[in-house]
Amino acid sequence: MKKMLRSAVIGTGFSAMAHLETLKRIPGVEAAAIVSRSYEKAASIASEYRLAYAYSSVDDLLANPEIDVIHNCTPNSLHYELNKKILLAGKHVLSEKPLALNSEQSAELLEIAKSSNLVHGVCFNYRHYPMVEEARVRITEQLSGKPNLISGGYLQDWCLYDSDYSWRMDPELNGQSRAIADIGSHWCDTVQHLLGQRITRVMADLAIIHPTRKKPLESAGSTFTNESTQPIESVKIESEDAGNVLVQFEDGTKGMFNVSQVTAGKKNNLHFTISLADGTLEWDQEEPNRLWIGKRNEANQLLMKDPALLSNTASDYAHFPGGHQEGWPDCLKNLMLSFYKKIKHLDQESYFATFEDGHYNMKIVDAILRSNSEERWMDV
Amino acid sequence: MKKMLRSAVIGTGFSAMAHLETLKRIPGVEAAAIVSRSYEKAASIASEYRLAYAYSSVDDLLANPEIDVIHNCTPNSLHYELNKKILLAGKHVLSEKPLALNSEQSAELLEIAKSSNLVHGVCFNYRHYPMVEEARVRITEQLSGKPNLISGGYLQDWCLYDSDYSWRMDPELNGQSRAIADIGSHWCDTVQHLLGQRITRVMADLAIIHPTRKKPLESAGSTFTNESTQPIESVKIESEDAGNVLVQFEDGTKGMFNVSQVTAGKKNNLHFTISLADGTLEWDQEEPNRLWIGKRNEANQLLMKDPALLSNTASDYAHFPGGHQEGWPDCLKNLMLSFYKKIKHLDQESYFATFEDGHYNMKIVDAILRSNSEERWMDV
Amino acid sequence: MKKMLRSAVIGTGFSAMAHLETLKRIPGVEAAAIVSRSYEKAASIASEYRLAYAYSSVDDLLANPEIDVIHNCTPNSLHYELNKKILLAGKHVLSEKPLALNSEQSAELLEIAKSSNLVHGVCFNYRHYPMVEEARVRITEQLSGKPNLISGGYLQDWCLYDSDYSWRMDPELNGQSRAIADIGSHWCDTVQHLLGQRITRVMADLAIIHPTRKKPLESAGSTFTNESTQPIESVKIESEDAGNVLVQFEDGTKGMFNVSQVTAGKKNNLHFTISLADGTLEWDQEEPNRLWIGKRNEANQLLMKDPALLSNTASDYAHFPGGHQEGWPDCLKNLMLSFYKKIKHLDQESYFATFEDGHYNMKIVDAILRSNSEERWMDV
Amino acid sequence: MKKMLRSAVIGTGFSAMAHLETLKRIPGVEAAAIVSRSYEKAASIASEYRLAYAYSSVDDLLANPEIDVIHNCTPNSLHYELNKKILLAGKHVLSEKPLALNSEQSAELLEIAKSSNLVHGVCFNYRHYPMVEEARVRITEQLSGKPNLISGGYLQDWCLYDSDYSWRMDPELNGQSRAIADIGSHWCDTVQHLLGQRITRVMADLAIIHPTRKKPLESAGSTFTNESTQPIESVKIESEDAGNVLVQFEDGTKGMFNVSQVTAGKKNNLHFTISLADGTLEWDQEEPNRLWIGKRNEANQLLMKDPALLSNTASDYAHFPGGHQEGWPDCLKNLMLSFYKKIKHLDQESYFATFEDGHYNMKIVDAILRSNSEERWMDV
Repeated sequence: MKKMLRSAVIGTGFSAMAHLETLKRIPGVEAAAIVSRSYEKAASIASEYRLAYAYSSVDDLLANPEIDVIHNCTPNSLHYELNKKILLAGKHVLSEKPLALNSEQSAELLEIAKSSNLVHGVCFNYRHYPMVEEARVRITEQLSGKPNLISGGYLQDWCLYDSDYSWRMDPELNGQSRAIADIGSHWCDTVQHLLGQRITRVMADLAIIHPTRKKPLESAGSTFTNESTQPIESVKIESEDAGNVLVQFEDGTKGMFNVSQVTAGKKNNLHFTISLADGTLEWDQEEPNRLWIGKRNEANQLLMKDPALLSNTASDYAHFPGGHQEGWPDCLKNLMLSFYKKIKHLDQESYFATFEDGHYNMKIVDAILRSNSEERWMDV
Repeated sequence: MKKMLRSAVIGTGFSAMAHLETLKRIPGVEAAAIVSRSYEKAASIASEYRLAYAYSSVDDLLANPEIDVIHNCTPNSLHYELNKKILLAGKHVLSEKPLALNSEQSAELLEIAKSSNLVHGVCFNYRHYPMVEEARVRITEQLSGKPNLISGGYLQDWCLYDSDYSWRMDPELNGQSRAIADIGSHWCDTVQHLLGQRITRVMADLAIIHPTRKKPLESAGSTFTNESTQPIESVKIESEDAGNVLVQFEDGTKGMFNVSQVTAGKKNNLHFTISLADGTLEWDQEEPNRLWIGKRNEANQLLMKDPALLSNTASDYAHFPGGHQEGWPDCLKNLMLSFYKKIKHLDQESYFATFEDGHYNMKIVDAILRSNSEERWMDV
Repeated sequence: MKKMLRSAVIGTGFSAMAHLETLKRIPGVEAAAIVSRSYEKAASIASEYRLAYAYSSVDDLLANPEIDVIHNCTPNSLHYELNKKILLAGKHVLSEKPLALNSEQSAELLEIAKSSNLVHGVCFNYRHYPMVEEARVRITEQLSGKPNLISGGYLQDWCLYDSDYSWRMDPELNGQSRAIADIGSHWCDTVQHLLGQRITRVMADLAIIHPTRKKPLESAGSTFTNESTQPIESVKIESEDAGNVLVQFEDGTKGMFNVSQVTAGKKNNLHFTISLADGTLEWDQEEPNRLWIGKRNEANQLLMKDPALLSNTASDYAHFPGGHQEGWPDCLKNLMLSFYKKIKHLDQESYFATFEDGHYNMKIVDAILRSNSEERWMDV
Repeated sequence: MKKMLRSAVIGTGFSAMAHLETLKRIPGVEAAAIVSRSYEKAASIASEYRLAYAYSSVDDLLANPEIDVIHNCTPNSLHYELNKKILLAGKHVLSEKPLALNSEQSAELLEIAKSSNLVHGVCFNYRHYPMVEEARVRITEQLSGKPNLISGGYLQDWCLYDSDYSWRMDPELNGQSRAIADIGSHWCDTVQHLLGQRITRVMADLAIIHPTRKKPLESAGSTFTNESTQPIESVKIESEDAGNVLVQFEDGTKGMFNVSQVTAGKKNNLHFTISLADGTLEWDQEEPNRLWIGKRNEANQLLMKDPALLSNTASDYAHFPGGHQEGWPDCLKNLMLSFYKKIKHLDQESYFATFEDGHYNMKIVDAILRSNSEERWMDV
């Protein structure tokens, strides 16, 4: 009988619970352990989800020889330290993004990862929507020729008011950059993956819309939540709420994108428009099941997520028939299916973001911050 | 510690596998058993999904006292017999629709169900989209007043060509009605649930677009698949491909809907437009995360699935933040969350379709068939 | 030099002013006269629009030998009498719909028209959108085969509240039917034109949502306006606000449509979905520049109004390049271009609705009213 | 009786004919003259459109004292010379854009215009869509607070292939910049008008996708047409096909836009997203009748062009009831209505682009070209 892989999740927040639920959907993988600072919380989750182990210590988890894979779903400030520990303990690792707090840390992690024979991934999940994969295949196979121009952005509204506060606004917990690092990095990863090319030059103009924000005194609040009735203090904000970036890719292709966490009504609006020599591909994460295909001399197309109509690898990401829409949880499932397939078949081509991608994306963020402060083009 | 409910799935087709995967996502429930005609297949699935039991006999399953709940995901022709067995074995049951092959059978099942204290459900899943629940709440709470007019339909294209064939075209396996029973019943269930009113009168005009179809000699093919290179025989088709129906509800409200399995490009297009005294609610299953709200004296609205913006019960169905779209698998998850919540808290209000609804929907199908053949209004 | 045709408009309401402005856009045609009950009003309009003549009497207008063509834009109750006079005076006529108040009158008009060699048209304008014409060509040329099923409707909201009142609610001024005659007739005309087939059987279920309405004492108000601060009287309403209709076409094709003037947020929502043997055509008058083309085995298409992408006759209706959207006024312009082209070239094929179509559409309305009251299928 | 203004159009191309047709729609204005190099052509158009005069010489036209207003619809290279002549002849002028070939010329024109008491306008028509005006009012009246971030672009596809050629690719006829000057200037004008603020700094990255193009030997071809069967020569292209631009406004608000004439399927896609303190306004010229209004704490809105739902000045631009869509020709009509209203009532506020705006937009184009070549931020 085929060996069942046994996996653990570190963390119990939004992301950790999404990982845990998704793990349960992956055939051939056992969700086996959870770690929380509070043993009680870990035990309760373990009971509800029928996990074999509950821990309050990462070291204890890593000492368990039965655990093969670790999902690092901790706050950003712990990513570096834990990713390092996990790799050194000889476990495969799927880390939430960013890989670390700065690119020196991520460079070190990449070194360790490369010198191991472990599988390492970073949760740039948007690659794994069926329609994004379909776009990638069409670009890679040059179905519409070379790219002419790229544009897009990633817009949200959860920081719209100065009464919105989260730990992500604290550089010590989140890193120096906010909108660019949190969401801009997703856009860069997705588009680089689509084009099979890296962004090598950037020119940025970032904005802090609220130079001070009202921080609740008691708790830093969680992302995507705004508790308005608590006592607050005014804190200075030094990370960007929004920004505009010109980019150039390896082969000279030009593009631009913007990020915003202050655009009312856009909740998670990652979108791109890729002009190719003989067609345009346009996609919006808020309508994830369709790909708009622009044509010059014939009708434009709306390709819907339908395994019968997609390319092979995209079709593999479409688990239900046409018209049975899939969403964000299924995109995460596709990421995990790719990640675990790689663990089982190390020699197969895979499409998830590795620590190499995670490190490069951190370097892009660094270059964007520098470009913004020096007001000039910056090489990544 | 809270008792974990233990569940079994009968069947291994599309619907059964969707149930199994979804069961893994329900906290507090153990997916514990699977039944297939082939023990090998059952054992293989049990291994991949870590189920405690694999069976090749429903009777053996029902004899297992550790199993609390049965998901009946068998072909239509087995629904009646198995639903009856399950209830008589004292297990809770969630049956795929239709409840039985005709309304005499479903009436009997309803009698048995009512005289038990078991929880019984039928998979009219479309009730469980967050935006459908939001529409229900707004109608129930009369936020825009009483209904003026209802319309909509359920359109697919998998029977478009006469080379499309499936067991669903065989009345012995599927029942007499196809498009009305398979998809029209979903429309009727969803809209009745939304209005809190039953359809009491119908006037139908049905159509068989392909009076003969090419049936593969070797296998009946599975729904949603068309294998075109096999030897075929021509078979006469007696179930409707499409149809138009006028309906009247308990309180006299008038409506119409159509069904079609021959409308190219519509894959699973269940949609409704409900005109109310002071607003209109419009929804399309192929864009499930949005509800269009029409207004006379102000801008129309596009309400997106966002737990922060929805009513309480609809918000419970939205598991991820705004912009993180959910889809068909999550709708099925919501159905199961409702169903298992009812088992754990028998006294709580629940919104899933029971055998009572399942039986009534079969009576509507009967009335539609009769109306069509007699060319006159028919009471349900 | 080519003879310039000289045209007159009878009326000064919404429709008359739209005709007048459109006439100014037609090369080779001189907008030459206007008739109003008030000579002052006629003279003022003639001055603003540089018309040669202003009249307060239709008879005076008809006595002017220089006038070739009359646009009858009077209230419904005058259509019959004036259309008859115009024809008997030997002038070409373009009449607002309905052709008359009942089908006896329209039959008489048709007789007179046929025995003349005058050009006669009725303003069923929706035929003349480029994307509607494109759909017609594709159906006529059987690009996607024969029709399987038709559906659609025509929804508005200007009668939503019982405080909405207009002369159209008075059967003496408007005729017996309101929603069906006013807007349902447009749907029937458009779809019959598209299919090149008549509706021969109907089964209707109509609804009066507000059995009484509040009529302003001083003025009947104009359509599309609601003045709320005037003294009112309660009047009984006997014409339908909404309704659902099953239809059958000459060749047996089945369809359904609904009409409503009480559907909030739908302003002028004439739409249709035509399922054909190998493709679906869907259009919505509120997004008139696009035609959705559904496909089974490839991506669906969104064909935009673009002369470079349309069939010949549709391309003639698209006066501006792709992306330069045209609208309702341009649709009326296309109707007039067709109508005047026919006058200049009597032998050419034309696509506007003649008195023959206008009369047949009145018979459909009659059949729908009868079907509704007798609750059975009715031949047209 | 009120004096009728008498107007002339110079030119007979696409733009000239659009002006002429639109002039016929403006009450109180007489389309009185046309100028073509070919007198025959002028005479033929004058006859079809019932114009009093036909000319083959601009000087002859300008010598006619009955003509009050001149529409300059000539190729770009003639704009400066003719605009100057027109002003010096004491006629009001509405010039097609760009105002001149460079900003020295446009500065001179502005000086002349300011020292006259003539009305001067430039055809930045997109300001005049009802939904754009609605957006302007909402921003000006601070209905959703101050702007946070701006983005958008203007995408077309008529230069997609290297076999596409037009006089616009010849710097001597079109000026140095193509995509930025032709369409980018429209974006800049529209957004500046919306915000009531000028773009004061730019940072650009432009692209020539086809460094050589195939020019037909016989004729330069007309814009938007591609005749492919003619003998061709290869010509070097020095004007940009596409480009990305960061912008900053007077008050420091940041934005970005791109232009492209090589984006397949986008025909005339001018669009913007304006993030404000408490709402977002998004509009797309290819769906001109709707304005998307994003909200943080309630449903997003889709405001449709409907005089009953718009602000006063926007409502004046909506000539037909809700659901009766208007388009590009009506937008041009609104521009002319504004322009002629100004001539009749010099003291009234007006919203069309004057020579001052036209000159400033040329300076933006200059700054963008310089920024691109020097790879740095440039003040306008």
